Amino acid sequence: MSITPLISVVGKSDSGKTTLLEKLLPELKRRGYRVATVKHDVHGFEVDRPGKDSWRHAQAGSDVTVISSPSKLAIIKKVERDSGLESIARAIGNDVDIIITEGYKAGSAPKIEVHRKAASSELLCSAEELIALATDEPLQMDVPQYGLDDAKGLVDCIEGKILRQRDTDRIELWVNGKNLTLKPFIKEMFINAMAGMVAALRGAENPHSVDLNIRKSAK
Amino acid sequence: MSITPLISVVGKSDSGKTTLLEKLLPELKRRGYRVATVKHDVHGFEVDRPGKDSWRHAQAGSDVTVISSPSKLAIIKKVERDSGLESIARAIGNDVDIIITEGYKAGSAPKIEVHRKAASSELLCSAEELIALATDEPLQMDVPQYGLDDAKGLVDCIEGKILRQRDTDRIELWVNGKNLTLKPFIKEMFINAMAGMVAALRGAENPHSVDLNIRKSAK
Repeated sequence: MSITPLISVVGKSDSGKTTLLEKLLPELKRRGYRVATVKHDVHGFEVDRPGKDSWRHAQAGSDVTVISSPSKLAIIKKVERDSGLESIARAIGNDVDIIITEGYKAGSAPKIEVHRKAASSELLCSAEELIALATDEPLQMDVPQYGLDDAKGLVDCIEGKILRQRDTDRIELWVNGKNLTLKPFIKEMFINAMAGMVAALRGAENPHSVDLNIRKSAK
Repeated sequence: MSITPLISVVGKSDSGKTTLLEKLLPELKRRGYRVATVKHDVHGFEVDRPGKDSWRHAQAGSDVTVISSPSKLAIIKKVERDSGLESIARAIGNDVDIIITEGYKAGSAPKIEVHRKAASSELLCSAEELIALATDEPLQMDVPQYGLDDAKGLVDCIEGKILRQRDTDRIELWVNGKNLTLKPFIKEMFINAMAGMVAALRGAENPHSVDLNIRKSAK
């Protein structure tokens, strides 16, 4: 499970997913959250433009191509299949408060469905999958419903149901590239052991985030 | 210090840095290494094309914009200034064997300088900064020198001087977003403690890589 809270904005095509995201993002930013968004691109895309240096790196075989500018840092990884939400969350890293995907209906993240009566007569998701519905007509369904423009209401809902996760300690452990699911008492053990070890280091007073990476030699 | 070995290919403008990288990359790939390349872009670049969904996400305020396709995963982070090599290495993650930057003369990574007599009469770096020189004329300098086409020789040199790092255990610790420098016996302590704790978990037999992330609650 990702250490960063994830939600998916889903909906039939032309329901207005991107438009809803364009409303949620400023409201989340206004409340001080750092947000990552994810979009699936079935067609693929090029790294930079043909002929540019970073494009030439990718053509010559680099597995990861990075372009760094004073305002952006782009990391483009070659993959062999569509990335799952877990590996996307890992690639994003741990410096955002929430990850919002556009689409990813099949993923296991909590979902908000966007519905416009002009675009479709039925929903993509069942009530159990949804934390909220953004809709331009009231539907007979036991899910909190918000207007398509109600960014404030929707973000209140996201805060209440998703971002509250931040009130508990979170831990993520990868061994040999595999994400391990930990029982609660094991989580507790790792958190306490690391807190104790880190507390003894200079420059590590009052640790609220700890990231440790170890690579054993091949010997 | 980055857990992944880093080298910088530097040289005066028009010396042929990208061309050299285009020769090193296939040779490194042939030897089975996973490689990341880094290029600095002073001009900045756009996330995707105007009007596309991921471009709209970035415009609406997302701090990190991700585009996932069946062959590539692009992660674009907004930054406030040029990223240093350490934060670039961190953003790349730990699944490559070596990171090669084009440029980054001011960085602390070991360097290979590219020299063409037609492009310049003098070098950018002193002998102390260089692990090798790729040059089309012999220079009076106490640094191993290779021809501009000698990918095999240069990669032998990189393997000998840089990738040997892989024969020792490596560890990286970030606390509150800050990379801590650890004394050798502290490294040893963290590696042994983690190895012991992880060994007890199902699915974590014979761990060669361990990544642990902890976020303490705000409570």
